This record gives sequence, structure tokens and C-alpha cells, in this order.
Amino acid sequence: MVSATVPGGARAVARCDALGVPPYSDIEGGLYRGYLSPAYEASQQALVGWMEQAGMSVARDAAANLVGRYDGTDENAPALMIGSHLDSVNDGGRYDGPLGIMLGIECVAALRERQERKTFPIEVIAFGDEEGSRFPAAMLSSRAVAGILDASALDIADSKGTALADAGVDPAVYLDAVRNDGSVAAYFEAHIEQGPVLEREGLALCTVTGIAGQLRYRVTVRGEAGHAGTMPMDYRHDALAAASEMVLTVERTGREDDADLVATVGSLDVSPGAPNVIAGAVEFSLDIRSGDQQRRDRTAEAVLAKLDGIAKVRAVSIEVALVHDLAASPCDPALMDLLDGAVARTGQPVRRLVSGAGHDAMVMSALCPTAMLFIRCRGGISHNPAEHVEVADADVALAAMLGFIDSFGDSLDR
Amino acid sequence: MVSATVPGGARAVARCDALGVPPYSDIEGGLYRGYLSPAYEASQQALVGWMEQAGMSVARDAAANLVGRYDGTDENAPALMIGSHLDSVNDGGRYDGPLGIMLGIECVAALRERQERKTFPIEVIAFGDEEGSRFPAAMLSSRAVAGILDASALDIADSKGTALADAGVDPAVYLDAVRNDGSVAAYFEAHIEQGPVLEREGLALCTVTGIAGQLRYRVTVRGEAGHAGTMPMDYRHDALAAASEMVLTVERTGREDDADLVATVGSLDVSPGAPNVIAGAVEFSLDIRSGDQQRRDRTAEAVLAKLDGIAKVRAVSIEVALVHDLAASPCDPALMDLLDGAVARTGQPVRRLVSGAGHDAMVMSALCPTAMLFIRCRGGISHNPAEHVEVADADVALAAMLGFIDSFGDSLDR
Repeated sequence: MVSATVPGGARAVARCDALGVPPYSDIEGGLYRGYLSPAYEASQQALVGWMEQAGMSVARDAAANLVGRYDGTDENAPALMIGSHLDSVNDGGRYDGPLGIMLGIECVAALRERQERKTFPIEVIAFGDEEGSRFPAAMLSSRAVAGILDASALDIADSKGTALADAGVDPAVYLDAVRNDGSVAAYFEAHIEQGPVLEREGLALCTVTGIAGQLRYRVTVRGEAGHAGTMPMDYRHDALAAASEMVLTVERTGREDDADLVATVGSLDVSPGAPNVIAGAVEFSLDIRSGDQQRRDRTAEAVLAKLDGIAKVRAVSIEVALVHDLAASPCDPALMDLLDGAVARTGQPVRRLVSGAGHDAMVMSALCPTAMLFIRCRGGISHNPAEHVEVADADVALAAMLGFIDSFGDSLDR
Repeated sequence: MVSATVPGGARAVARCDALGVPPYSDIEGGLYRGYLSPAYEASQQALVGWMEQAGMSVARDAAANLVGRYDGTDENAPALMIGSHLDSVNDGGRYDGPLGIMLGIECVAALRERQERKTFPIEVIAFGDEEGSRFPAAMLSSRAVAGILDASALDIADSKGTALADAGVDPAVYLDAVRNDGSVAAYFEAHIEQGPVLEREGLALCTVTGIAGQLRYRVTVRGEAGHAGTMPMDYRHDALAAASEMVLTVERTGREDDADLVATVGSLDVSPGAPNVIAGAVEFSLDIRSGDQQRRDRTAEAVLAKLDGIAKVRAVSIEVALVHDLAASPCDPALMDLLDGAVARTGQPVRRLVSGAGHDAMVMSALCPTAMLFIRCRGGISHNPAEHVEVADADVALAAMLGFIDSFGDSLDR
């Protein structure tokens, strides 16, 4: 059993910090690391050094993901892949992505320190494009690895007009990054929570149950514009009042759910939107997420029926367009149990949370069983320079990951 | 007694139509007549002809209002002034303003036809600036007549940079348009309703009780922005949900009022306003109007207290700024009674309505007792090329106005 104070956590955090400035950032005074950018290449060079220093052989795959490999004793055994993404959003934080990579490297470094090899190889993967902050696509490079990317998706260019094909990868061989040859046994990702739950509950980390499925709608309510002074209340078909009732219905539905469902109206535009004119039309977004896809779909159906009812009572029209439907991606139940055990052995309470945000693990679940560990981040703040992780939490996370690797090995032996 | 089918209504409507195109409009394919513009000058020239034809002497005052005078038999008697405004909003309708002027001219034309003079003179005034569609001010020229305009308000320019001083009036003498020498006994204005009530109730016209007092606020609600996927419902301080509850409270308050009060949230802006981000802040307008100023103020106080309560329960902050406070301008009770009687004598049901929109009569009430007559307009539509008035309604309005003039004279004799 590994102590809860493996010092590698500090090094993992320090390396994330080191990659937070030029030349590892494409901007001065903050962090932006676009897929295949100069900062991306420089950061990969740093990673190569750190991976080799931890005893790994390093290769860059056809999708420009960096893969470090620490062999097992059985050369035919499929790998436990540990990873996250190297790219960042513009003016983002230093830990969203890189921390999961650095902790993977620390896992291998710790094993090597102990002069220990598992039967299975451990691969640490630094995915290239997760955020979609440079090209109009997201999780391109993990989709290539998982074998769910279509070649047509590669015909894209960044906002400056640089085609992906001219950015340092070859579309003709990009899909060769696929690993559906049985060479990957499982994918593990450690990631900051990007939410406030762990902090508010006083927890350093928790097991992730999966990536929530997401439904996004655009709802348009059309009433009747009119003069705010001359149109009596009883004659009105106020689109904003109708939309307000709908917003509250959405909120109530989310609050009444006793599981992980969240329902949000985040954008709302009023037309014509003048103080002295009764709103003629309102367009708003509706976002519903849950780790349980059936629950999500049932709830969405119920919410939309209620919105219809509100529109009928108020004699306004309603139009609903599905903007996107991202399937839920549950983590593997057996791996979740192993991770719970590893968390418990660090002395931490066991907690499970769904991830409301997307991660590479979502994509990798198409290839193999996945597990995810959430690490507390200050204030739940992410995609922001104020993103912060405590070294102590990174240490506990590393301990839990090493515990998980042990348990994973034991489970293969059984 | 005058028949309800005085043919002058058709002429009044036709003259409004004639002024709806160039050179009486500053734009092609629609009507825009800005104060002191070429179209304004051309329209005044047409009015001069029609006023003279009706037997009036015509003068332009220092504020560029056109005043036609039909003398009475007592040269010392103060005048009954009948009028409305000649300017229009951009791409507006043909009757909002001009119809009241044209019907005033028809009143005089009918008296002259009968070879009748009252003891008091009748003046028909075509105010220049009511809409404020050219210069950043409104009711400039009626404020000058009423003696409530400050000289400093004249230091303005239109959007092209033309100063009022260079547009055809002399600021040094502008305030000389004032008529607070006791030369005006009362002001009467006929105007389209610009609302749907008369049409829905099947009425051609009604007596106006006054211009509603208006309170306008800007309300800012500040909650806590957050990720729509990672922030559980129970942790949220959603500014848009809070604002939605407030919008419904405003609507409910207006609906519960059993008099003429209206309460409206017409503009609402969400920040940051993205589908996947919980709203951090919302700014919205609050507009409350009533002909009864105390009722308006009591209600506003109660609404604001309720909004405060909602903010407290939701633990969001609220900030309320008063944007403007326009005092209610009640019409004169005795003149309203006279007008009710005149309406009844045309065979129309008697009805009273408050005006939710502003009119020159609002300003003129600072000078003398005022009376207003509303005329039905199709669909309640105004400030729009689709603005429409039935000739039959203009005829009835003219009959009511002539009846009012008779009653006004009789009331002076008593």
C-alpha cells in the first residue's frame, strides 16, 4: 500500500505550472495552447523528456498524440492507458488536461522507483485536441485513437485559415492512430472536477460515474409585441412572461430530480427588447444533462410537454429545435469499484460524481472500459487563469491512482 | 346639433394621406417627417393653405409651430386651442399627430360653413416636435408654448450634426412661443388610440382621462455564473431564474390591478448568455404606468419590495435604478364631462380610457385645462406604415369635437 503523501503530486503540479508560460503557451501573460501550435510542439518536447526520465519509451502517433510506454512483464498483454489532453482553451488554466498526464507520468515514475513492473504495460497518453480551441472540432485526436473519427472531419482549418493538413499532421494517415487491435485494456483519466462539489463537501477526490449525456435545444416563443403603455394587461401575449414561466419550469424540474440531472437556460434573447415594448418573441437555450441517458430523455420529454402547456395557456406559439444530443458515456462499473477501493485506501471518503463536462474518456469508452478520477479544484473554477489545484490533493490523487493500478493488476490475476 | 356623418372626416383622413409621401415625407416609400426638415416645411405650407381655406389667419410661432386662428366675437376672450403634432417617427404612420390637426381644421371649416362664430376664438395648432425623432428631445415645441422649456434644452443637434440653432429656428427667441398670458382657455387634442381597446370593444372613440404617469427602472440581478454541466442545481444562484420569477411578479401585479395600471418588462439581457453557462447577471427594464399617480407609486413600491424578497430567498443581489419618472397628467374633469356628453350625442357609447403613451396634451396641461379624444385605429397599430383609421370613425370624431365646442361655449355662458 502506498502512503497518501507520495511527493510526486508536487512535481506533477509544478510541471503543469512550468507549461503555463511561453514557449509552452502561445500567448504572453496567460495560457493558450492550441493543437499543433508552437506551444504545443514545445510542450510535447518537455513531455518527451519527462516521460523518458520516468523510464518510458516515447512515440508520437499519427494524430500527433504523444504516447509514453512502460513495458509490462507480459509482452502480449494489452496496456492500461492513462492520459488526458495537452491542449488548452484560450486564456485557460494550467491543470485542465495536463494534470492527468503529469500524474500518469508520476505513476510510472513511482513504479520505476520501486523497480516494479506489472504484467501489463502502462501507456501514458497526452491527447492533442480535446478542447477544440484551435480547429472547429473537438476530441479529434482521441476520436482517432478510439476509431470513431471519420476522415471527412479532417477537412478543417483554423481561424487564420491554416488547414489541419498544413498544421503538422497528415490526414492521409491520421486515422492510423486507431488502437482497436485489442492493445488497450482500459483507459484511466484523472482530471480536475471543474465544478464545486468536492470543495463544498470537503473531499480531495472522487470516482467519476461517467460523462453525462447532454441534450441541447433552442426554444423560440412567439407572442405579440405591443406598446407597454397602451396594451392592457388582459390583452397581452407577452413572450417574455411566457418564457419566464418556462425558465422557472426548467429550474423546478432540475431541482426536483433526486439524482444527477441538471437543467439550465443559459441564454435568452428578447425581441424587440425595448423597455416600452411588450416582448414579441423570445429565443432561449435549454440544456439537460444526466449520467443516466434514459432519465435525461424522460425528463426532457416531460419538460417540453410542460413548456407546450404554458404556451397553450398563454396563447403564444412555441418552436423547439434539437441543437445536439451527446450520448451519456458511463464509466466501467468494475473499474469504478476498483477506484473506490483505491480512494478508500488513501484514507479518503468514497464519493461518486457524474461529470457534467466532456472529457477524452467519453470518446475512449468506444474503445475500451474507462475509469475517471476527479480532483478538487479551488472554487470549482476552470477555463480561467484562476484555476488552482492544491499539491496535497494531487498527492492523494497520485496515491489513489497507484492503488488503482495495483488493484487493476490484481483483478487481471484473478 | 350636428349629425354624426359630417363629411369633413373623409377630407381630414385624405389630407393625412396626402402628407404621407414626398415632398411631405423625408423618405421614399414611407413616411418620415422630422421637425424642421424639408418635409416638415413642405407640410406646413400645405397646412397654411388648408387653414386659410377654412377661414383662419395663420402664423408660425418662435418654436416653428403653425397656428391658425378663427376669431371669436369677443376679442378679449381666451382661445380654445385644438391641435396635435405634425412630425412623425421614422417609417411611421400617417395619422399619429396629423389627424388631430386636420380634424381641428375641419371643426373650423364646419363653423365657417354654418357662418357661425363663438364668443371665443378657436386656434388650431400644429406642433413641431412631439416624437423627438430628429433631435434628442421630445415635445420641445409644445413645452415652449406651455412655458416649461428651459433654454439650455435647445443646445442640441440631430444625428447628422445639424444644430437646432441652424435648423430653422432661433434659440434666442424660441421661448417666446410661450402662451402663459392667459390667451389660452383650454387645449383639446384628438389622437388615434395607438392601442387595441376601442377596436376590441367595438367603439369608434372615447374620452381620455389623462396621460398615464410612468415610472421606468433598470433592475440588475447578480447571481453566480457557473458551468451548466458541473454545477448541481442546489448550489446555483441563477440570475436568470431569479429574474424570471421577478418578471412573473411584475406581470401578476399588473394583472391584479383592477384599474388602468400596466406593468411591463420589455428588455432583458443575460450575462454571459451562453447555453452552457448558468447566468451570472441579468439586467432588465421595469415600466409601470397608471393615470392615477398615487396608485402607480404605491404599486411600484410594492413590486420593488417583492423583487427584493425574491432576491433574498435566492441569495442573489438586486440593484434598482430609477430611469425616469414622468408625472401623470390628468385631463380636466369638467372638460371630460363635456366631451362625454358630446360623444353621447353622436350616438356612441361613452367610454373613458387613460393614455399609456405621451401626447402634447400632457405638456399643455401645465398651461391650461386639457381634454383629449381617442379615435380607434386598426389593430391598435401605430408607429408603423400599417397605421389605419376608418373614415367613418374620423367623421364621428369630428361630430364629437363640434359637439364639444358647442358645449364648451355653453359652459362659458353659464
